[in-house]
Amino acid sequence: MPTTERVSLDALLKGAREASRGLARADRDAALLAMADAIERHAADILEANAQDVAGERRRGTSAALVDRLTLDVERLHGVAQGCRQVAALPDPLGRVLDGWRLANGLDVRKVTAPFGVIALIYESRPNVTVDASALAVKAGSAMVLRGSSNALSSNRALVTVMRAGLAGAGLPEDVVQLVDSADRALVTELLEARGRVDLVIPRGGAGLIRHVVENARVPVVETGVGNCHVYVHATADLAMAESIVYNAKVQRPGVCNAAETLLVDAAVADAFLPAALAKLRAAGVELRGCERARAVVADVAPADASDWATEYLDLTLAVKVVDGLDDALAHIARYGTQHSEAIVTRDLASAERFRSEVDAAAVYVNASTRFTDGFAFGFGAEIGISTQKLHARGPMGLVEIVTYKYLVDGDGQVRD
Amino acid sequence: MPTTERVSLDALLKGAREASRGLARADRDAALLAMADAIERHAADILEANAQDVAGERRRGTSAALVDRLTLDVERLHGVAQGCRQVAALPDPLGRVLDGWRLANGLDVRKVTAPFGVIALIYESRPNVTVDASALAVKAGSAMVLRGSSNALSSNRALVTVMRAGLAGAGLPEDVVQLVDSADRALVTELLEARGRVDLVIPRGGAGLIRHVVENARVPVVETGVGNCHVYVHATADLAMAESIVYNAKVQRPGVCNAAETLLVDAAVADAFLPAALAKLRAAGVELRGCERARAVVADVAPADASDWATEYLDLTLAVKVVDGLDDALAHIARYGTQHSEAIVTRDLASAERFRSEVDAAAVYVNASTRFTDGFAFGFGAEIGISTQKLHARGPMGLVEIVTYKYLVDGDGQVRD
Repeated sequence: MPTTERVSLDALLKGAREASRGLARADRDAALLAMADAIERHAADILEANAQDVAGERRRGTSAALVDRLTLDVERLHGVAQGCRQVAALPDPLGRVLDGWRLANGLDVRKVTAPFGVIALIYESRPNVTVDASALAVKAGSAMVLRGSSNALSSNRALVTVMRAGLAGAGLPEDVVQLVDSADRALVTELLEARGRVDLVIPRGGAGLIRHVVENARVPVVETGVGNCHVYVHATADLAMAESIVYNAKVQRPGVCNAAETLLVDAAVADAFLPAALAKLRAAGVELRGCERARAVVADVAPADASDWATEYLDLTLAVKVVDGLDDALAHIARYGTQHSEAIVTRDLASAERFRSEVDAAAVYVNASTRFTDGFAFGFGAEIGISTQKLHARGPMGLVEIVTYKYLVDGDGQVRD
Repeated sequence: MPTTERVSLDALLKGAREASRGLARADRDAALLAMADAIERHAADILEANAQDVAGERRRGTSAALVDRLTLDVERLHGVAQGCRQVAALPDPLGRVLDGWRLANGLDVRKVTAPFGVIALIYESRPNVTVDASALAVKAGSAMVLRGSSNALSSNRALVTVMRAGLAGAGLPEDVVQLVDSADRALVTELLEARGRVDLVIPRGGAGLIRHVVENARVPVVETGVGNCHVYVHATADLAMAESIVYNAKVQRPGVCNAAETLLVDAAVADAFLPAALAKLRAAGVELRGCERARAVVADVAPADASDWATEYLDLTLAVKVVDGLDDALAHIARYGTQHSEAIVTRDLASAERFRSEVDAAAVYVNASTRFTDGFAFGFGAEIGISTQKLHARGPMGLVEIVTYKYLVDGDGQVRD
């Protein structure tokens, strides 16, 4: 697959459309198992290709953590293959009757899940996403068009080659999975403008990538992304529980979108809560930035400015604000939240209910950490991303979020009056 | 409301967002009844404003049919008010628990319907849409921002003023319904780019309007629109039924998106079917454009060229093509269809099943007219448009299609391992 040649996106998308036809009726689970087997059988080729990407990143002086994210080994590759097998074992998302009724004229209407057709993923994630996303698309009856980042191009090329071999071995068209195998950014633009030829684009990556996709797409998009998540400690909270939840939401994995970025504390419990809670966070290496009232309670907290309330740190940094009760907390979240995951810690029923009702977010937690917002934690068995928009899918997107539906209407000659 | 001043869209959208908060918990049905009463109480003002629009169109020499679409009278206005009352009587689309489960760690997850927040409608339809769409938004707990066409501006202004009075009378914020009251097209662009401030844009109107919205929107859109619908008469069809269905799909209301534009007939029954069926269509004033094989069967059918297969006539014109069986019909529909409504007339079970499975359209009919694809015919009690995209909503969109959902997660201190 030469990268020097201009890839014909038009031909690629035609191939994807062709390949998607009939996929709903094919044995998709057998294909997923064949993909998994092919990945394990050709592990050496994949690891060799991956080594090239890793060497390239090392030459560029990329940080050890990022190089590690890119690196595959036998064990990780086995995990990737097992992921395909797990997707195969999930229930079929197609052909589910979501609803059905009979009209007065005798027409039978069924609302039945159906494939999107062609799904494109534009991503800068680890190479395992190349396989995870393809497996989900196959299971959902859609062709997958992948556009990964250039630093993983060799790995993605090897993985896609092997998955296509697996598909072909199972009797499915290879073009069910395709890679936009070129560093030409104009192809991304072309992909984003391919109305009618791409049914859904999902961006996964940093804020810049997501913004680019959302602003330039003419095809339907599900936005994934930014999580400026809050934990609000209400005056009635069990303070030990609140400390545990805040600590978990910030520290357990700070680089992900469902980690907390701002702690809101009711003034009534600030003195009782903040000293110990912030000391524990600080002991875990968390840098704290507080409002004036928080700084009056706990020494040596750096001053927060307005930009802190709006920042998704994705790091061991936490903004801390003392608020005057639920209304104040709700107003802060409405202003600065990104509609991802928001938590209240409270013992008061009415406050919990108002928080649930009034917070506009994909996931609203009462007395639990925000860190649970993902497809695996929610029990979906897989995840293609976490939506931060309200159209189509909100929050973790599993298999049922990457299918559409159609109405099947059966009659015996009905015509409209 | 002066139109010469530049409307501040920013202020308008802030007002909409503010007004939308708490709407889910307000008595939305009482507000709808108050809106209906206000419309009837202020009928004289509305009709006077409408008369200005009508006079303007007459001066411009607009066709009688289009002037009629724009015209309101006491009876039509009563129908509009009754529409509000019917929406009030529909079940509440908010707070429905779509799904729910308990995780192994004891967290209770509920997936519950929730309002979008701010919905914008960009339309060039009849003035009744101004009220119908606003009523649906109110019922769905969202604020509505309306941008109608300039030729209905006086009518829309009067209707919005009266609806706002009704809302205020019921104790709701007036800004739940707002009109972008300016002919300035830059405001449409601003509206389409208002990410985070508009949660959903729905275009309703001609192909040009819809294309403009889809191509320029940075906010989530549900595309409504073009229906290049087919009726396919299979070799096994009951030919009397087929004749009745084709006639209804073409003639009953040719100007709407679910009317048929092309008739596909199996070669095996072309001789038996076409002469009588086309004679009946012609007698109803339908202009026929046929492929060579159709023209060989029926005299005086104009030749169809490639553009005919792709045209949504929205008129008493029908393209006619003889095909060689199901595969040929499926290929034609895949190439030229707009994924709206497609019908097969057949007695063969396997052909019906393949048609249902392989046709990629919002509504797939077996032995019924395509004309049933709308929210009223489907029994939704209302309709805000017919989606021709696959993301979020497909086909007729009623109340349940203009809400989103959120996950409510309840714990007693759960943190992630």
